[in-house]
Amino acid sequence: MGRITARRRVSRVVVGQGSMVEREDVLAVEEPLEIRVAGSSFSITMRTPGHDFELATGFLVSEGVVTTRDDVQIIRYCSGVDDDGRNTYNVLDVALAPGVEPPSVDLARHVYTSSSCGVCGKASIDAVRTSSSHPVDADDIRVEATLLTMLPHRLRSGQDVFERTGGVHAAALFDGRTGELLVLREDVGRHNAVDKVVGWAVGQDKLPLTGVVLMVSGRASFELVQKASMAGIPVLAAVSAPSSLAIELAEETGLTVVGFLRGTSMVVYSRPDRVQTHQ
Amino acid sequence: MGRITARRRVSRVVVGQGSMVEREDVLAVEEPLEIRVAGSSFSITMRTPGHDFELATGFLVSEGVVTTRDDVQIIRYCSGVDDDGRNTYNVLDVALAPGVEPPSVDLARHVYTSSSCGVCGKASIDAVRTSSSHPVDADDIRVEATLLTMLPHRLRSGQDVFERTGGVHAAALFDGRTGELLVLREDVGRHNAVDKVVGWAVGQDKLPLTGVVLMVSGRASFELVQKASMAGIPVLAAVSAPSSLAIELAEETGLTVVGFLRGTSMVVYSRPDRVQTHQ
Repeated sequence: MGRITARRRVSRVVVGQGSMVEREDVLAVEEPLEIRVAGSSFSITMRTPGHDFELATGFLVSEGVVTTRDDVQIIRYCSGVDDDGRNTYNVLDVALAPGVEPPSVDLARHVYTSSSCGVCGKASIDAVRTSSSHPVDADDIRVEATLLTMLPHRLRSGQDVFERTGGVHAAALFDGRTGELLVLREDVGRHNAVDKVVGWAVGQDKLPLTGVVLMVSGRASFELVQKASMAGIPVLAAVSAPSSLAIELAEETGLTVVGFLRGTSMVVYSRPDRVQTHQ
Repeated sequence: MGRITARRRVSRVVVGQGSMVEREDVLAVEEPLEIRVAGSSFSITMRTPGHDFELATGFLVSEGVVTTRDDVQIIRYCSGVDDDGRNTYNVLDVALAPGVEPPSVDLARHVYTSSSCGVCGKASIDAVRTSSSHPVDADDIRVEATLLTMLPHRLRSGQDVFERTGGVHAAALFDGRTGELLVLREDVGRHNAVDKVVGWAVGQDKLPLTGVVLMVSGRASFELVQKASMAGIPVLAAVSAPSSLAIELAEETGLTVVGFLRGTSMVVYSRPDRVQTHQ
């Protein structure tokens, strides 16, 4: 896919080494994607093109619309064209299987609201807890701390686009027992990378993702914990810090969150019983 | 504000050093903020509490609703309460001055769409170009490359919350001639941090932000170039990489984008004429 990266002329400056030097550089592509469900616009996200069907599917899992492969009948690019008449490949339409409830417009705009308290973290957490059909609380997987310390390197090694651009996030699913890489996706948006790996798992009929570790570059936000919980993932590992609300949600859903996974050390923020250490 | 950080018990693991050690840790707070305009819901964002009025104001600048301080009549917290009857301070209502056009709901949901080509980068760029009332193209500021190399350190030095949590982004405005720090804001969302500094500038009646450098932690996305352009900022500097669409928009609006600003080196992606080097 030539649309994942783009070449551009740039100017490089090193202070003390004279004037600018022009050269060619490779950038990560960012383009909008509109996701429609049965013809109605549901969401627009800025993403790196590629694996768009997975992105749409994973996004619908995180919104509670799709829970298994059979819930999606077909996904198609719409015939949206640009000024030159070329298909933009930036609009998708998802046809749900008969009997699957389409999302309400209200859900699309107000995921985090609740009439009880206007809008607050508690309402956001309740919304996730009541809508998930893949509870992670009971998943009794134990993951070796030693195995977790290997994941950042495995994530980075699989990042083709980052290697060339230095400008994308990544999310990957690993087997929690063997550490085997199941799938890795890159995107300018971390939430999109997570949607893509979850969408891949739907296509493989792997939901709920029991026994799996989701590893992400960067931080662990509320949104990522939400996406992991909705897909039935028991362990979320991040290179950097989580937020307070991310951990509150993780405690409610029973998700293990590991942060600051660097070198031989890590911090376990919730459900530490799943991380195995040896004396 | 006690709501910016939160304390939690966590477990620290160092492989090879025995079992887990429990300790107290400080996390960055993340909570939803609903922004209403004249009573109608316009946007919900997950943000770090604090400087919420600035956030709302800056967001309305980036959406083309507000262009000067006089456009905002008053901002108030709504009386949304949680289950215990406490105000959540998570819902704001913005009253616009008489004659200022409120945003359409369509704008809130479809910032990037256009009937001409469904949804594509070109439409997104056109939407920004036609709605900005603070053109940056003509700003003839020249910024010394040496000065730019000092900004990452100054940004990091001002990051109180990052110092304690390791989990927030930052945005700051610097005087392009002297390098003086004008304002710095931190947030779990980089786009919120930018909205907060722009909102601060509106309050100081400093729009358009001619002669100013906006420095951000992390990457430069389309969204950040959009926000900088709408506020009339001529130079955006980032620690990491920009995306392709960010640079396309920067070229259209005449914004200088500097990326990979590390040590003594940097890459200038657009309008390099504003960066001054000495042989």
